[in-house]
Amino acid sequence: MSEPNAQWRLAARPVGLPKRSDWDYVHEPAPEPADGQILVELEYLSLDPAMRGWMNEARSYVPPVGIGEVMRAGGIGRVTESRHPNFTAGELVSGMFGVQRYALSDGQGVRTVDTSLAPVPVHLGVLGMTGLTAYFGLLDVGRPEPGQTVVVSGAAGAVGNVAGQIARIKGCRTIGIAGGPEKCEWLTEELGFDAAIDYKAGEVRADLRQYAPNGVDVYFDNVGGELLDEVLRRLARNARVVICGAISQYNAEQPPRGPANYMQLLVERASMAGFLVFDYAKRYPEAVAQLAEWLQDGKLISREDVVRADLEQFPEVFLRLFRGENVGKLILELGRHGR
Amino acid sequence: MSEPNAQWRLAARPVGLPKRSDWDYVHEPAPEPADGQILVELEYLSLDPAMRGWMNEARSYVPPVGIGEVMRAGGIGRVTESRHPNFTAGELVSGMFGVQRYALSDGQGVRTVDTSLAPVPVHLGVLGMTGLTAYFGLLDVGRPEPGQTVVVSGAAGAVGNVAGQIARIKGCRTIGIAGGPEKCEWLTEELGFDAAIDYKAGEVRADLRQYAPNGVDVYFDNVGGELLDEVLRRLARNARVVICGAISQYNAEQPPRGPANYMQLLVERASMAGFLVFDYAKRYPEAVAQLAEWLQDGKLISREDVVRADLEQFPEVFLRLFRGENVGKLILELGRHGR
Repeated sequence: MSEPNAQWRLAARPVGLPKRSDWDYVHEPAPEPADGQILVELEYLSLDPAMRGWMNEARSYVPPVGIGEVMRAGGIGRVTESRHPNFTAGELVSGMFGVQRYALSDGQGVRTVDTSLAPVPVHLGVLGMTGLTAYFGLLDVGRPEPGQTVVVSGAAGAVGNVAGQIARIKGCRTIGIAGGPEKCEWLTEELGFDAAIDYKAGEVRADLRQYAPNGVDVYFDNVGGELLDEVLRRLARNARVVICGAISQYNAEQPPRGPANYMQLLVERASMAGFLVFDYAKRYPEAVAQLAEWLQDGKLISREDVVRADLEQFPEVFLRLFRGENVGKLILELGRHGR
Repeated sequence: MSEPNAQWRLAARPVGLPKRSDWDYVHEPAPEPADGQILVELEYLSLDPAMRGWMNEARSYVPPVGIGEVMRAGGIGRVTESRHPNFTAGELVSGMFGVQRYALSDGQGVRTVDTSLAPVPVHLGVLGMTGLTAYFGLLDVGRPEPGQTVVVSGAAGAVGNVAGQIARIKGCRTIGIAGGPEKCEWLTEELGFDAAIDYKAGEVRADLRQYAPNGVDVYFDNVGGELLDEVLRRLARNARVVICGAISQYNAEQPPRGPANYMQLLVERASMAGFLVFDYAKRYPEAVAQLAEWLQDGKLISREDVVRADLEQFPEVFLRLFRGENVGKLILELGRHGR
């Protein structure tokens, strides 16, 4: 292997929105797999809001990315060399390979990509961590019942649009909150949401009153901040708030804003719970089978926002997540080397 | 009935800490019971932090007390006249009779006080709504397991001290948070808490680290504000946060402070849930029997802070709740009229 590797390594803890100089773009010889390892050439990088959290030093559910370490990210690539019994050169695999051209892996957490189920990018979206997060968060933590009202924030985002579609499939009245009329139209016209609220229009309170006249039974929150407070005001009795993310706060330079209306949990005998998809690893096959079936039946629409660019442009593409620019699952497509 | 009635009627919506002028103290002829009603002469008034919330106009779990209405409060009194088949003159009854000398009631929610179980004030404390709130909140919402770490804030207060004692009875490591060394000593020396944290000493974070080295499995919160944020920082995996109250915020003139660290719910796959004791009404007899048994066995210590005073002093006695002055259940004992 004589191709040089390219990597984005964390250079500094960002303050506020990350900037290019928070990483170093470095080149070095591609590594050689040892016994029990594979070498993967990345073709697709999964770009997720959670990556912003991994750049902070704070204690969280995974250790932070260390200064000087390759930026953590999921991705799909082709095995170019295998010294691992479970993998053969040439096959497509999915795993946490990092923001780099070539990754070494011992195979842990690496899954073979079954392209007969869906095109490759879908395996980072609906059939990847994104879809699994929506599936377990909505169904296991939110526990919506048919006829109940489900509100999803960040509803045009990767996880949000899937969570909302699952709610619709389960017979819930589904309301998405997103930024801008185009996203809202996509939710109602293409994905079958019952209603969409454009939070940028500034009428969230009135809109919620109109679209959720009997209150919100399940709130699937990807955003936090003011929207969380607005939805807390409208909780129905025994409501469940699913804390999936808080993208409005990830780049805050002040301490994050807590939900001032949390005492509505008492008033409405409601609960707010966090979860992590990794805890459901044993049930991934069940969920993937179900999601793939819905995809095949046309009940679930998969949308990837695939940006074809050079690895060198990673920071700019990543930051689209925080500018409300992407719809669906943001993926950086690297293409295969030299092509 | 020719005795005049005395009443505290709400005169204004308080801003911040209530003041005497937020009520009117009025005298009028005592009412006459109609068919199906009883007349009760109040002897004990239950003074609770929740009463502050009922003075606000905001939507909550019960309608606010209206301007001009008698201030809402629980109490125990003697039936002086009965035109209701279930009650006889002379018996002691407990109910939401309001802050007044004489109350009319149609018997709804009124229970006969069984003085063979415990002295009268205990029926407003451990055997009343206070004890029931601690019982169902801790056991049904908090679901502590033996050996787990339970933290209670407002631990020297009426509900808090009972919640902590039940946790101890259930074999939990029990940590109370209270204001001042005397309260803390009472918790550890007399009530058998494993540790107590004096939040006024300003070392809550270090104290929690020391006393809950493996994290907090159940947090029974009566206080909200900064303490809630501090405990959220130390949640154990799958922790349960029970929202019982938020006394630190009840008199806030700013919008209440939300828990900025609520994303720890995600990191630790934890939940935060509110509850109201009224929802458990069908199970009150079970809980009262258990609480009475623990009292009789000496496992549970009942402490009432009984202030004997004239009804005219209600505002001053009530405000002790918000000055951290009371230990245990605050009760205003009126005595019987003219004695």
